[in-house]
Amino acid sequence: MFFRNKTKKIKVGSVEIGGGAPISVQSMTKTKTSDIDATVKQIHELEKAGCQIVRSAVPDQEAALALKEIKKQINIPLVADIHFNHTYAIMAAEARVDKLRINPGNIGDPEKIKAVVDAAKAHNIPIRIGVNSGSLDKKIKEKHNGHVTAQGLVESALDNVKLLEKLKFTDIAISIKATSVPMTIEAYQLISNKCKYPLHVGITEAGIPKIGVIKSAVGIGAILAQGIGDTIRVSLSGNPVEEVLVGRQILKDLELISKGITIISCPTCGRVSIDVVKIAAEVEAKTRDIKQPLKVAIMGCEVNGPGEAAEADIGLAGGKRFGLIFRQGKIVKKVAEAEMVQSLLDEIARFRRTGGIIND
Amino acid sequence: MFFRNKTKKIKVGSVEIGGGAPISVQSMTKTKTSDIDATVKQIHELEKAGCQIVRSAVPDQEAALALKEIKKQINIPLVADIHFNHTYAIMAAEARVDKLRINPGNIGDPEKIKAVVDAAKAHNIPIRIGVNSGSLDKKIKEKHNGHVTAQGLVESALDNVKLLEKLKFTDIAISIKATSVPMTIEAYQLISNKCKYPLHVGITEAGIPKIGVIKSAVGIGAILAQGIGDTIRVSLSGNPVEEVLVGRQILKDLELISKGITIISCPTCGRVSIDVVKIAAEVEAKTRDIKQPLKVAIMGCEVNGPGEAAEADIGLAGGKRFGLIFRQGKIVKKVAEAEMVQSLLDEIARFRRTGGIIND
Repeated sequence: MFFRNKTKKIKVGSVEIGGGAPISVQSMTKTKTSDIDATVKQIHELEKAGCQIVRSAVPDQEAALALKEIKKQINIPLVADIHFNHTYAIMAAEARVDKLRINPGNIGDPEKIKAVVDAAKAHNIPIRIGVNSGSLDKKIKEKHNGHVTAQGLVESALDNVKLLEKLKFTDIAISIKATSVPMTIEAYQLISNKCKYPLHVGITEAGIPKIGVIKSAVGIGAILAQGIGDTIRVSLSGNPVEEVLVGRQILKDLELISKGITIISCPTCGRVSIDVVKIAAEVEAKTRDIKQPLKVAIMGCEVNGPGEAAEADIGLAGGKRFGLIFRQGKIVKKVAEAEMVQSLLDEIARFRRTGGIIND
Repeated sequence: MFFRNKTKKIKVGSVEIGGGAPISVQSMTKTKTSDIDATVKQIHELEKAGCQIVRSAVPDQEAALALKEIKKQINIPLVADIHFNHTYAIMAAEARVDKLRINPGNIGDPEKIKAVVDAAKAHNIPIRIGVNSGSLDKKIKEKHNGHVTAQGLVESALDNVKLLEKLKFTDIAISIKATSVPMTIEAYQLISNKCKYPLHVGITEAGIPKIGVIKSAVGIGAILAQGIGDTIRVSLSGNPVEEVLVGRQILKDLELISKGITIISCPTCGRVSIDVVKIAAEVEAKTRDIKQPLKVAIMGCEVNGPGEAAEADIGLAGGKRFGLIFRQGKIVKKVAEAEMVQSLLDEIARFRRTGGIIND
């Protein structure tokens, strides 16, 4: 649907990022990485929710030592998130993680940077450079009047890229996340014009779900809608499973993935006679596991109702006391309010059985 | 922050739309408009939540007759939403509503269209043309291979505009809402290049809050981030107060309104020792009524913590067992986990008292 920026393709385990590959959804474990059982359990929950790449922090030697065993017990690619300590990065590469997230600029010593790059090359794993507004290099901040700016974030990312390119390492992904949505959008616009490395998109520290879900949807959505971004992560103070569900819905809303059921339901107004909210919530609860593309419209009145119901695979257009059930644009039934949910569920089951082919 | 498209300015009661006026948040009542008490009660709730313009459906004569009394009892501008019936539109104008939402193309008879326009002129009220994917003109659909397309939606809106312009009426706002986010984005991009009337932005029938909040944030956010849009409405199958809160947060996230508190909190990971989620939720619950611009960062670890905490007005950077409280970039206190919430609340209260000026 959208024009998408052409980026270099990299591979994180079996998952491709960039170069036109489907946009993937990532998350991060919130357990102590050294607690192997808890971390593996959380990764399995994330996998089940649709997470395609998972990242774990490696803040200490115990975490670095746990990676090999975690890797054995999970099915999706694992990214080791490392700050400052280059030996953990080398340990992670040797544990055969699928990507490192480390900023060479933070390692400092050129010999140490080279050792990390050599380990990444030896095991054929990419490196993500991840610049965050909260940890922007002090020198760059000073250059930009002491403040974090989109230009400063991009400059920092490109400085890190140069350190890797100097060592002939180009298996790179980049993220530049700020807590400010406009600053993040601006930073991604700038960097997407300056290099062709695939971009990992997110709004950092978006907050508790109540706030962070909207902030992430606005920011990540706005960037993707401009054709920028190859993989996404929603950052919420909360259960990482929710990060994955929100990430997947952002992609679905932008029609960048088409899997699963889409329920359209009207906001209701003074024209509505049926309980649209209750009907929509019941149908949503009973159909949320459907992976097949299917569009269901639940509409309250005669203004937009018949039009939307007819454009959907299955539709309900409410009227006074009765409603009409539509199947691929044709009215198939007139039902009383009490029967509406069941009639919709019957039609959905029928649609799934027949693959949408009307055969009677 | 963003470059914003320059549009014509119109006035809806005391609220300006377009021409660089602040982007306003609208909602719609879900009561029977003829039930004056219920409708007024809901409008008061919406006002309290920050709704700046409210719309009510006028599907019958009782609703049209109720408008005058509703108008008397409320403080924000009222929009009458009318389909097909031109006499209700005239009754609404005579009841001194602040805007009509009606598509002249649906009225048909040129004499009747003229009567509505004359009423709007006489009372100096604008008309919003509102095209929806669910009620797109059949002839236009046929022209576009029988389907609803962004081009078809724009064509329909501009056909309606022409009907008004022919009568020398240009006090117009336009909306073009589809249930598909990419189609809605495309339609707004197209129309913003074709005319200068202010644009009312929304994603129609976004669904129950769980789904519709994200869909609205993605769609409305993506459009606003491209500089398009002068007023917004979030459409949810649910309480309209939630529509307003979500709409306001979209504007806040895009820094198009700056009022109120912003809480940044990290998503937590294997590096974190303090309970960020609990602390952030407690601080959010106790500060959500703050209208003053104030940025609070609640961060779990030493990687991004000190940087974000220092960029915020008030910050907490967690460590092992203890955390540091920051005030405008300076560390002011070291606190144990049990004292963190109270210390943050104390600093917030202090900031509000002093207007952020450090005076000790």
